[in-house]
Amino acid sequence: MRAGPSQEEVRRHNLGTLLRYVHVHGATSRAELTSRLGLNRSTIGALTAELATAGLISEEAPRETGRAGRPSLVVRPESARVYAYAISIEVDRIRAARVGLGGHILDRREAERPRGMQVIDAVQPLAGFIRDMHRGVGDDARCVGGGMAIAGMVRRADGVVRLAPTIGWVDENVSGALSTELGGELSSELGSGLGDGDPGDAGHFLVGNAADVSALVEHSRGAAVGCDNVIYLYGDVGVGGGIIAGGRRVSGHGGYGGEVGHMVVNPQGHPCSCGSRGCWETEIGEYALLRLAHREDQSGSEAVLEVVDAARRGDRIARQAVRQVGDWLGFGVGNLVNIFNPEAVIFGGTLRDVYLVAAAQIRSRLNAVALPACREHLRLRTPELGEDAALIGGAELAFERLLEDPLI
Amino acid sequence: MRAGPSQEEVRRHNLGTLLRYVHVHGATSRAELTSRLGLNRSTIGALTAELATAGLISEEAPRETGRAGRPSLVVRPESARVYAYAISIEVDRIRAARVGLGGHILDRREAERPRGMQVIDAVQPLAGFIRDMHRGVGDDARCVGGGMAIAGMVRRADGVVRLAPTIGWVDENVSGALSTELGGELSSELGSGLGDGDPGDAGHFLVGNAADVSALVEHSRGAAVGCDNVIYLYGDVGVGGGIIAGGRRVSGHGGYGGEVGHMVVNPQGHPCSCGSRGCWETEIGEYALLRLAHREDQSGSEAVLEVVDAARRGDRIARQAVRQVGDWLGFGVGNLVNIFNPEAVIFGGTLRDVYLVAAAQIRSRLNAVALPACREHLRLRTPELGEDAALIGGAELAFERLLEDPLI
Repeated sequence: MRAGPSQEEVRRHNLGTLLRYVHVHGATSRAELTSRLGLNRSTIGALTAELATAGLISEEAPRETGRAGRPSLVVRPESARVYAYAISIEVDRIRAARVGLGGHILDRREAERPRGMQVIDAVQPLAGFIRDMHRGVGDDARCVGGGMAIAGMVRRADGVVRLAPTIGWVDENVSGALSTELGGELSSELGSGLGDGDPGDAGHFLVGNAADVSALVEHSRGAAVGCDNVIYLYGDVGVGGGIIAGGRRVSGHGGYGGEVGHMVVNPQGHPCSCGSRGCWETEIGEYALLRLAHREDQSGSEAVLEVVDAARRGDRIARQAVRQVGDWLGFGVGNLVNIFNPEAVIFGGTLRDVYLVAAAQIRSRLNAVALPACREHLRLRTPELGEDAALIGGAELAFERLLEDPLI
Repeated sequence: MRAGPSQEEVRRHNLGTLLRYVHVHGATSRAELTSRLGLNRSTIGALTAELATAGLISEEAPRETGRAGRPSLVVRPESARVYAYAISIEVDRIRAARVGLGGHILDRREAERPRGMQVIDAVQPLAGFIRDMHRGVGDDARCVGGGMAIAGMVRRADGVVRLAPTIGWVDENVSGALSTELGGELSSELGSGLGDGDPGDAGHFLVGNAADVSALVEHSRGAAVGCDNVIYLYGDVGVGGGIIAGGRRVSGHGGYGGEVGHMVVNPQGHPCSCGSRGCWETEIGEYALLRLAHREDQSGSEAVLEVVDAARRGDRIARQAVRQVGDWLGFGVGNLVNIFNPEAVIFGGTLRDVYLVAAAQIRSRLNAVALPACREHLRLRTPELGEDAALIGGAELAFERLLEDPLI
């Protein structure tokens, strides 16, 4: 329990609220900000002046409206000048991007990640990507830090990757390794962007679970805008979950919440990489679909797409495979719907492909498992930001501190 | 997104924060309030004066401390003078209580509820209980309203009980029925306590799911104090869940979240009252235990206790039954731990009895299902407030509005 804020805290809160609004919604007129934020015009004017001085927003007259009276200035985030670096570490690839305030990807690089690639071999090309992108950045631009999304369990306290079973990493300080690889000047620029100088061993990148950060991005600017209860599922070899309840992420005590891929759905099922048996991802992940389609010799999202395409063309075995995966997908979503009573479930990664051909099967099983009241306003959706969500979400980790207190 | 609060909003927030503090923690010195709430002494003095004038707290000098200097006044909630009525509707009984600010049960009544009892037959004795308790209340006491806990799915918008499968009620306006039954003067006293005059058809009682309100009470003043991620399980014929994530209740879009009893754990299992098959409650609820113990002809929590006692005494069939229920209990908790990464799981109702004799079995299965990171700080606990949690929690629904704004 805490008492109410001081006037200075209120002012900083208002600065952050205004900056967050244009970060999420893009260019907004002062008139709209006045109404959306519930502040009067002179307060809005003072706040935008302060943010403009800090180089975080710009203001300009709108295009001619043809209406009488002085038009309201339009406030824009300085997307080209204020940015964060984002890293995404996935089963089959590694990606890096430079993301501007407002969530615009300004530049990007990617490389394949052979399965089994270790941390040291991943951070070298990633550091190269960042150096390469950094060469193209103007002198007047400001880096506010770096963020990293990874398909694994991330300790909130220090960003250590405790377990990324599908990537094969255990207790890895990936941010520290990448910061060391970046070395000297660039690393310290990232560090000063973060506003805290030497981060110690933890490195300069804030680390989050890929499904978690993607869920937040789809919630703030994608398929789940306006929904306060959202389940975002991301499938590849494993299945990750990012859950938003009451408008806030369900992260759990240590930051490991949302491991829905390891909800056991079939006690008599297949062994899972986690050591348990019959976890949801053993029934709906890439291996399950390829096994059921008699394509155990293949792997990767391309192979999944081929099965889905074959099913769409009427191939009997592929159709049965997709149907069975869809059935288990609906089953597990039904369980989650009973637990969370969400408005939206979003299918990302390979689950998107499965959903697009097996929606009826998924709905049918979901409806059998989920209580009517829990599913009555539920919508099933595909991501709007697609694969960009992990990059934008990684950058959001770095932007978050700026938005909390824009004058740091 | 909303801008920061005005000074008047801050003052009301501070009044609520102070009142909430003594409501939850009991008598507290002004010195401690100053430090806990982060406000200065004169502000605390002004707030307590205002709350005392409103009749919500009292202040008195502490007992002689033997220390030099003027002792700090002790602030107490006016538990005997400010109260709410609480109702609990359970599978086998109905209860009513008068609960003082601070969460003290001042008076209580209860009656058996034969299975199959309808709403109209339940609200008559409940109204009688309230009238009876009300006769003993002094003229200077103030009723702030009424709350009701029920083992069912409650629509947040209007308190309608959508589905209470173990109680046998569907789409019932229980609060409206009870308010009508109370009638006239008493009902309007409850209504003015709630501060909103005519509630329309919804009745004067705020309604919540029993496991939800119990979870909040164990979180604020029971077995899960200091834990921000908590799963409270309550078992009888069904299994209800109250979930707290990041310090806040997971209620879902319509208020139906937490239906963990209908998480399907055994796709080949028994039919459930909800229409699905193999729901968790079909494996760990009262019927499952009595079936496994070859006592299908019995029912109720006493019968469950007899099986547990028999198991404790070494009865082979009872031990097997308890062990199997414990195994499924650990299984489902393992799934929830992967989803929520909680610090505490609390076993209430008949699950408490099962936990006390099958803890090893539960832990063993839980550890096999839950990922190590998700369970590393997990503690399994029994409720501290026991059966009182539903009554105190029901009253909290009514107190909540007062705590939000004590000067309403």
